[in-house]
Amino acid sequence: MIAVLKNNASPERREMLIDWLKKQGLNVHISQGEYQTVLGLIGNTDNVDMDMLRSLDIVDSVTRVSDPFKAVGRKFHPEDSVISINADVSIGGKGFALIAGPCSVENEDQIIYVAQRVKSAGANMLRGGSFKPRTSPYDFQGLGAEGVRLLLKAKKATGLPIVTEIMDIRTLDLFEDVDVIQVGARNTQNFDLLKELGKTRKPILLKRGIAGTIKELLMSAEYIAANGNENVILCERGIRSYDSAYTRNTLDLAAVPVLKELSHLPVIVDPSHATGRSALVPPMALAAAASGANGLMIEVHNDPLHALSDGAQSLTPDQFDDLAARIFKVREALLA
Amino acid sequence: MIAVLKNNASPERREMLIDWLKKQGLNVHISQGEYQTVLGLIGNTDNVDMDMLRSLDIVDSVTRVSDPFKAVGRKFHPEDSVISINADVSIGGKGFALIAGPCSVENEDQIIYVAQRVKSAGANMLRGGSFKPRTSPYDFQGLGAEGVRLLLKAKKATGLPIVTEIMDIRTLDLFEDVDVIQVGARNTQNFDLLKELGKTRKPILLKRGIAGTIKELLMSAEYIAANGNENVILCERGIRSYDSAYTRNTLDLAAVPVLKELSHLPVIVDPSHATGRSALVPPMALAAAASGANGLMIEVHNDPLHALSDGAQSLTPDQFDDLAARIFKVREALLA
Amino acid sequence: MIAVLKNNASPERREMLIDWLKKQGLNVHISQGEYQTVLGLIGNTDNVDMDMLRSLDIVDSVTRVSDPFKAVGRKFHPEDSVISINADVSIGGKGFALIAGPCSVENEDQIIYVAQRVKSAGANMLRGGSFKPRTSPYDFQGLGAEGVRLLLKAKKATGLPIVTEIMDIRTLDLFEDVDVIQVGARNTQNFDLLKELGKTRKPILLKRGIAGTIKELLMSAEYIAANGNENVILCERGIRSYDSAYTRNTLDLAAVPVLKELSHLPVIVDPSHATGRSALVPPMALAAAASGANGLMIEVHNDPLHALSDGAQSLTPDQFDDLAARIFKVREALLA
Amino acid sequence: MIAVLKNNASPERREMLIDWLKKQGLNVHISQGEYQTVLGLIGNTDNVDMDMLRSLDIVDSVTRVSDPFKAVGRKFHPEDSVISINADVSIGGKGFALIAGPCSVENEDQIIYVAQRVKSAGANMLRGGSFKPRTSPYDFQGLGAEGVRLLLKAKKATGLPIVTEIMDIRTLDLFEDVDVIQVGARNTQNFDLLKELGKTRKPILLKRGIAGTIKELLMSAEYIAANGNENVILCERGIRSYDSAYTRNTLDLAAVPVLKELSHLPVIVDPSHATGRSALVPPMALAAAASGANGLMIEVHNDPLHALSDGAQSLTPDQFDDLAARIFKVREALLA
Repeated sequence: MIAVLKNNASPERREMLIDWLKKQGLNVHISQGEYQTVLGLIGNTDNVDMDMLRSLDIVDSVTRVSDPFKAVGRKFHPEDSVISINADVSIGGKGFALIAGPCSVENEDQIIYVAQRVKSAGANMLRGGSFKPRTSPYDFQGLGAEGVRLLLKAKKATGLPIVTEIMDIRTLDLFEDVDVIQVGARNTQNFDLLKELGKTRKPILLKRGIAGTIKELLMSAEYIAANGNENVILCERGIRSYDSAYTRNTLDLAAVPVLKELSHLPVIVDPSHATGRSALVPPMALAAAASGANGLMIEVHNDPLHALSDGAQSLTPDQFDDLAARIFKVREALLA
Repeated sequence: MIAVLKNNASPERREMLIDWLKKQGLNVHISQGEYQTVLGLIGNTDNVDMDMLRSLDIVDSVTRVSDPFKAVGRKFHPEDSVISINADVSIGGKGFALIAGPCSVENEDQIIYVAQRVKSAGANMLRGGSFKPRTSPYDFQGLGAEGVRLLLKAKKATGLPIVTEIMDIRTLDLFEDVDVIQVGARNTQNFDLLKELGKTRKPILLKRGIAGTIKELLMSAEYIAANGNENVILCERGIRSYDSAYTRNTLDLAAVPVLKELSHLPVIVDPSHATGRSALVPPMALAAAASGANGLMIEVHNDPLHALSDGAQSLTPDQFDDLAARIFKVREALLA
Repeated sequence: MIAVLKNNASPERREMLIDWLKKQGLNVHISQGEYQTVLGLIGNTDNVDMDMLRSLDIVDSVTRVSDPFKAVGRKFHPEDSVISINADVSIGGKGFALIAGPCSVENEDQIIYVAQRVKSAGANMLRGGSFKPRTSPYDFQGLGAEGVRLLLKAKKATGLPIVTEIMDIRTLDLFEDVDVIQVGARNTQNFDLLKELGKTRKPILLKRGIAGTIKELLMSAEYIAANGNENVILCERGIRSYDSAYTRNTLDLAAVPVLKELSHLPVIVDPSHATGRSALVPPMALAAAASGANGLMIEVHNDPLHALSDGAQSLTPDQFDDLAARIFKVREALLA
Repeated sequence: MIAVLKNNASPERREMLIDWLKKQGLNVHISQGEYQTVLGLIGNTDNVDMDMLRSLDIVDSVTRVSDPFKAVGRKFHPEDSVISINADVSIGGKGFALIAGPCSVENEDQIIYVAQRVKSAGANMLRGGSFKPRTSPYDFQGLGAEGVRLLLKAKKATGLPIVTEIMDIRTLDLFEDVDVIQVGARNTQNFDLLKELGKTRKPILLKRGIAGTIKELLMSAEYIAANGNENVILCERGIRSYDSAYTRNTLDLAAVPVLKELSHLPVIVDPSHATGRSALVPPMALAAAASGANGLMIEVHNDPLHALSDGAQSLTPDQFDDLAARIFKVREALLA
């Protein structure tokens, strides 16, 4: 950590600050320039409050040099992580995850039909929501435990591993046979939930917050990893911006190469929630594939007109057949 | 709800849509204009998916007319709510809440000393964090249950009612003697937590999300109220914007009159978290008082330099003495 | 335009409003529902102030139905516009524009060398800044007229048409032999400049504003087109968001399909300014190509380390060779 | 400027970088730590491209230490600037500017009537738009030169100094008798306009950009000051945020104390454009006064229902009478 002192800092106050920093267990390297003094703080600076330092009269600026992402950062883990989902499917490295399915599980026929259709199009994982975070208490909240049971039936019928969202840690037991547990955008900073998931060994699909920064996403992944579970899949799903006239969120595709540069974890993209409109899903899915994402999560519904939630952003199975073929073509072109 | 159809909509498709809407239990008033057809949907439109309607080929635009805030909205509850905290303190209407205290409870001496000082300056409620949501898993996470115990000691010593934050619903028992339970900005859309708090009768201080909209804040309040607890205090605490070079968040003071127009619930402001710098707290506290807020929540620490969290934004007790006096002057000037 | 009246609107005030609307030359269709009255306003509603209507006591909501994009919208011009730059190059439809060159023109050797290199890599247009909008008055402001002269030399040497930015309408004469005039992100709403450019017949490359909405970009294009010049190329270049820790702007690729849906004008993407870091340019350029953009504008510099501006985001000619080949592969894969 | 090198930087590359920096005319102080090397760059670092430095493989981070605001910053000009408008009115220090008037000048009767009314309420300056920046080319664009002429009549009739907006530098001659020239939010980074205004000696009222940062506002003021004109008044007018459902912009009142800390220039607030709704203007005007602003600019119209632009946000003269009285009360309370 680097602290730059103001040029009018009195020697007494400077000494007081240096003493205090040393008492925090830090080595302080002093570099006296013509116009300012620079302090280099060496040691464990995790507990140094940067905002506090910055607020001191005699301090001009503070910069953290060391990397805050210890477990999920590339620095001490330069190779890509590859997360095995089952014998056939892995995410990260060369493995590509094409995850598809309805926003919400609605009934047995629906989920099994959609599972069969997305599998035959080339998807290798099934998604479906059972517990739904809805802005309004009066909106459909998902089938709950029954939804998980139906997903497991679809898994049995098709062999596809399944991913579904957890909202409340008290329901963790229901996820025993779920292959990947999703943490949604509204829970990305639900730290108590993250800590508990860190104690499991399940792969966790962690979505970026509604208006979350890249750093916050990685710090939330760090909560899971620091508690013992390094099986984390990062998911870009669009961020809140000032312009929502034509898209629900702003898909931040540059986050894909940035996350892959900073972290060894796999990164996937959800173009359905990002855009909120089915017509925009194919171009954004193709763009995400071209950007180097390790996978995609796409909403597919047999009857979007009657979908109980988020119908506007779902593709039909036929549309997904077409899109999946084009995604594979883009990947081939880039790997060639 | 109003749906405007495109002028090229075929009569058959129009009929199909109208039939489908009627099957949802709605009355459909058709208004045929020269260039477009307008459908007025009467009845319970809560379950109509606006995005779905909008995405249909033949639909041009959809507008929700009825108010989504049933329990917390002004429409059916035109008078200001006044929430009694104890025999002496109430929030809302003419009652003004001046809540002060440290970001985190650190030890018994600290919390009792700060409580005495803020009380003598005119504060009528004590704040202090025991469970702290921190971006990094390596930062100080609060004293937990011990922090709540120390707050209760300070309450006993000074008579000040206390407010402290809950992060995990499994700790609810610890809050039995807490006067106001705070829901922090990262949990504003933790819907399972909100539902459980809705089953209590405790006053809930609900902070706006990190990048939450005014509507989302009210819908989250609606989650609490719809579950039976209408004792909700709304709190503006700054929103995330593109400019964080000089302030941590952007304090959105216009939210105060907007929230008071839309809802009968009291609205308070937290200038400390909003700005993140103690020098900005007094001007923003005074501005908030002038904007018509029903209260303020301000961080005060006996020794900001050594505060375990958010020291940079705390006032000293002496600074708070001065600020409180000025706040009361502004309020007097406006009530005169 | 649709105005919904509140259910407590008195008949007298309703009549007053309707009279006033009729005096504006509008036909008013009244649709009386059980709970509200809906007014359909037919005729030229361009001059009706929506905010004013909305602010009236008796009005609940106002929705504009007709399309504000008359000249640049798809409604009255369903086919893609194709803009011819010279005998060989056109943008829009199937024509793809690969525009490359340095941020700033620096000297004759530099611009001719870069022009030759990007041409041999497959670029079909040369970019280079002569007038540079810099945040600080103390930063390098471009070579001005001399820069334009050097660009024209590079055009002569390579046959590549050139694009360069105008900042001040008083310099328009200098652009006589420039093939495409660029309007930068800080001038997207410099309406007097747009009006004057609308009186020329030059192709205009119009960048989205620093924090501009999609609608504002189209309305600015409308300023040019309404003054007589429909040769407008729209350019997505990243928008300002709350997260600029790792990228300068947030590239909004969904704007590409949205703009193409709303407008017949060609849409290109500038991944260099969007990301601000050369390492992110290739993945975002490939993503943009996959999203359906009609072209790309990419910064290439022979010596990024010594570039006088924006060196951090420039590719070397060798890096551009590699990227161009991959862009063509992605386009082939998607057209196949 | 401080550059921190990565711990894996090879000695050769480090030497290359240091040599290159020295060739830029800088002194380089090298501070070798256990885990990293810190370079302190002393001298004129204005031309050093921070982004370029940051993008080098061997560089970890770069921080600018010296202040970029040379002319408008507090560092070399610690006292508040006081800008004299005429014999009676000055802005800055203890002088408070209450600027009021219609959004657009419409006709002689209107502007003289409004001028008389706002003067009698206590305003000391008249505003009115003659050249109007409108998003749509089809909206009313202002009366132009005729509007300026009418403002000058109102000035003569009431003695109030006038402020009106310039959009195109070619019209500068028309502003000869205008007291304060306004630069609107869409022209805050129209650098050629700022340079020309810097060559005049007129007070310039410079609005913050639509989504401008505090730093950008000060850098734009620096463009004016660096060209010789230090009579700049800064104006906070709301910024673009993700939540525009209930307010047009988000008024960033914390910008007031921040700007006053960084700069010696006076800072005023425009609550009318910031909120876009007349009901929100009084609470935000009072809040701005309490925050320490040096003035307010408020829209007042004799007949808001028929205003040709922005009627929704205008107060009536009666409403302004009431508000002005309350503003003066708040100021008295705080000065007491």
